[in-house]
Amino acid sequence: MISKILVPTDGSRAARKSAMYAVDLAKQLKATVIALSIIDKRSFMGQTVPAGKTSRHVIEPIEDYLREAAEGYAGEIKKLCDKNGVQSKIVITAGHPVEAIVKEAARTKVNLIIMGSHGKSALAVAFLGSVTYGVIHKETKIPILVVKS
Amino acid sequence: MISKILVPTDGSRAARKSAMYAVDLAKQLKATVIALSIIDKRSFMGQTVPAGKTSRHVIEPIEDYLREAAEGYAGEIKKLCDKNGVQSKIVITAGHPVEAIVKEAARTKVNLIIMGSHGKSALAVAFLGSVTYGVIHKETKIPILVVKS
Repeated sequence: MISKILVPTDGSRAARKSAMYAVDLAKQLKATVIALSIIDKRSFMGQTVPAGKTSRHVIEPIEDYLREAAEGYAGEIKKLCDKNGVQSKIVITAGHPVEAIVKEAARTKVNLIIMGSHGKSALAVAFLGSVTYGVIHKETKIPILVVKS
Repeated sequence: MISKILVPTDGSRAARKSAMYAVDLAKQLKATVIALSIIDKRSFMGQTVPAGKTSRHVIEPIEDYLREAAEGYAGEIKKLCDKNGVQSKIVITAGHPVEAIVKEAARTKVNLIIMGSHGKSALAVAFLGSVTYGVIHKETKIPILVVKS
């Protein structure tokens, strides 16, 4: 019985497409959608950022910006759920996308993860985006539905 | 709206697990299951089989055996569907598994393909079985649900 579906999003076109599929499926199943958006700290926590006062000035506004973006992406899915009478919940978390998805899937005890075949990565020509590849590769036993983009 | 689900099987434990998941989901969705079993001709059409009368004697019984096995695997899924009040259909086809799955998905206009992460391959330690990998990699736009084994 599928009652809870995790839908990670990075705001990409592929993520939007997979979210639409997820909301349709959730509606048909009367399941709850958990919209997950991850603040990917790798994007600004490079080894090259010097420690000290200056880096704080630089990092905080970036972190704020990324959090706002993440909230926006997950919010879009929530809106889509509301429009379709599907129960939903937003989760914003920080970390490595693959780890964050697997951790959240376990924490919220979802029965299914729905993801796009590609995210924002420049390697979109590869057969699978690195995040989707990573989640499939992980030890998690939760089934994954891959929506092609 | 998911109304038709393709469930390829090679009779492996992983395929059985994905079939159980598929039947549960189909029941919840009131969808039809198409159980697909493929006679993989690669397994006996090696380049080393000599042409002529002798090869016929060898090949025909093998082909019969593989067909019988394929019918058995798909039949198991049909039984599971019957037990759960899920409509189903059996398709037996010959060819390369990846090509056959993609072709059948298009022909029967399914909305979803459900597969195990690994099939019978000896490379089960790899992150994805070669057939599942192949179907995800293919140009088909049909979503794929991967059940972990």
